[in-house]
Amino acid sequence: MPTETLAHSGFADAIAALSPDGPPRVWSLIVTVFGDTGGEVEIGAGTLSRILGMVGVGGSAMRVALHRLKSDGWITARRVGRSSAYRLHPDRLTETRAASARIYATAAPEARDWHVTLLDPEAATREPARGAAIQIAPRMYLRPGSPTDMPGALVLCPGGAAPDWVRRKVGSAEHRQAYDALLRGLQTANELTRKAQLPPVEAFALRVMVVHAWRRVILRHPDLPEALFPEDWPGRACRALVQDLLARLPRPDAGMLAGF
Amino acid sequence: MPTETLAHSGFADAIAALSPDGPPRVWSLIVTVFGDTGGEVEIGAGTLSRILGMVGVGGSAMRVALHRLKSDGWITARRVGRSSAYRLHPDRLTETRAASARIYATAAPEARDWHVTLLDPEAATREPARGAAIQIAPRMYLRPGSPTDMPGALVLCPGGAAPDWVRRKVGSAEHRQAYDALLRGLQTANELTRKAQLPPVEAFALRVMVVHAWRRVILRHPDLPEALFPEDWPGRACRALVQDLLARLPRPDAGMLAGF
Repeated sequence: MPTETLAHSGFADAIAALSPDGPPRVWSLIVTVFGDTGGEVEIGAGTLSRILGMVGVGGSAMRVALHRLKSDGWITARRVGRSSAYRLHPDRLTETRAASARIYATAAPEARDWHVTLLDPEAATREPARGAAIQIAPRMYLRPGSPTDMPGALVLCPGGAAPDWVRRKVGSAEHRQAYDALLRGLQTANELTRKAQLPPVEAFALRVMVVHAWRRVILRHPDLPEALFPEDWPGRACRALVQDLLARLPRPDAGMLAGF
Repeated sequence: MPTETLAHSGFADAIAALSPDGPPRVWSLIVTVFGDTGGEVEIGAGTLSRILGMVGVGGSAMRVALHRLKSDGWITARRVGRSSAYRLHPDRLTETRAASARIYATAAPEARDWHVTLLDPEAATREPARGAAIQIAPRMYLRPGSPTDMPGALVLCPGGAAPDWVRRKVGSAEHRQAYDALLRGLQTANELTRKAQLPPVEAFALRVMVVHAWRRVILRHPDLPEALFPEDWPGRACRALVQDLLARLPRPDAGMLAGF
C-alpha cells in the first residue's frame, strides 16, 4: 500500500496539516483539480480516483460529487469505453480563470491598487457581498482594484499609508487564524518535498491540496495589497511557500491526466 | 450731509443689504480694511473714521475696537501730530495673506483639489475645527487641498464625481441661506455702482463692505471646488459679482489712505 509507506515519509501528515478544519468538501476539491489543470484538460475517472484516493476520498464520495458538479453545470462527462472522462464546463472557464489569476499570482497587488466607497449613510443602498470588500467604517468599504463609478456612492483613492486600525480590519483576527493554520500546513508540505522526491500521483495530490488550502483562505477576503495588512501578516510567507511548492510539484501533463 | 444724499442714490440700501444680520462687528470690519489694503499700508485715524462713518460706525465704537485690536496684537499704532496712524501687526501678515488668497481668488479650487480623512472610529482622535472640514459620515471629513499625512487617519483622494448627498452636506441649507442673502446684497451694490460713480470715500466704504460680507460667508466653510457643491449653488454667482464689484471699486492708494 503506497499510502502506508508514504505515511512514514510524512505524506499523510502533510495532507492533514493542509486541511486543519477536517477533510475538504469533495466537490470543491474536484473544482480545484480542474482549475489547476488550466480548465481545458480532460481528466479520466481513473486518474481522478487515484488522486482523490491519496487524500482520503473514497470512490462513492467521488461519484456523488461528480454527479452534483455535472447537474450544477460545473463539468461535462464523456463515456470512454467502460469508463468516463471529465472536463470543466466551457461556461465556467471565465470565472475559473479569474480565480486562477489570483490563486497563482506571484505577488500581491500593487500598493495603490485599492479604493474606498462610501454609501449614502441615510439611503438603503445594498451592502457589498462578503469577500468583495472590507468594511472599515459604517457604510464605508475598502475594495480591490482601480476605482469604478458607483451611482450614489462617494468613490475615493489612496491618499497615504493605511493606519494600523485599518490594517487590523483588513487582516482580521479571524483571517489571521486561518493564515497561521495554512502556514503550518504549507511548512509541513514543504519539509516533505525537501526530504523526498514524491511519485507523480502523490506529487499531484499534494499539489492539489496546497492549491486548495491556499484558495480557500485567500478567496475569503478581497485581493488587497500587502501594505493594507498588518506588518506581521502571515500572508506574505504563505504566498512564498505556495510558490516554492508549486515549482517543486509541477502540473502533470494532459496525457498523464487522461491516461493512468 | 453726504450720507443723506447717497441714501437717495441707494448707498444706504446697499450697505444694509450687505449686512443682512445687522451691523458688522467693528473690530472685524477694521481687520477687513487692513486686509484689503494688502496689510502693509498705514491708515490714518481720520481716514478710518470717515470710511467707518459711511457705514454707520461712530467714533467711540471705532476707538474701542482699535484699542482691542492693539491689545490683541492685530495692529500697531503710531502718533502723528495730534492724530494716530495704524497698520497691521507684522505677526499677522501671514494669516492675513492666507485669508486674502482665498477672499480675492478669481476662481474656486480645481475640481480634484480636495481629500478625505477617516479617523479611527474607536479612538478618541480630536475632530477638526468647524470651518476646516465638512463631516460627511461618522468620523469622516472632507477637506480642501492635496492630502497630507495625518497620524492615525486613513487619507483618501477623489476617485470619481461626488454624489448628490455629499454635495448637500458640503453646501448645507444653512450655508445656502447665507449665500442667498449675500447674493441679494451684492446685486444691490452692483446696481448702485452701475447707476452712479461714487466719490472715493464712499467707493472704498462700499468695497470694504463687499469684501467683508463675502469674507464672512466664505470663511465659514472650507475652500472646496465647485464640483462638490450642489448644481444650483449660489456661490459661483456671488464670486462673479464680487469680482465685478472689486474691479469697479478699486483700492485707494497709500497716500489717500494715510492722508485725508
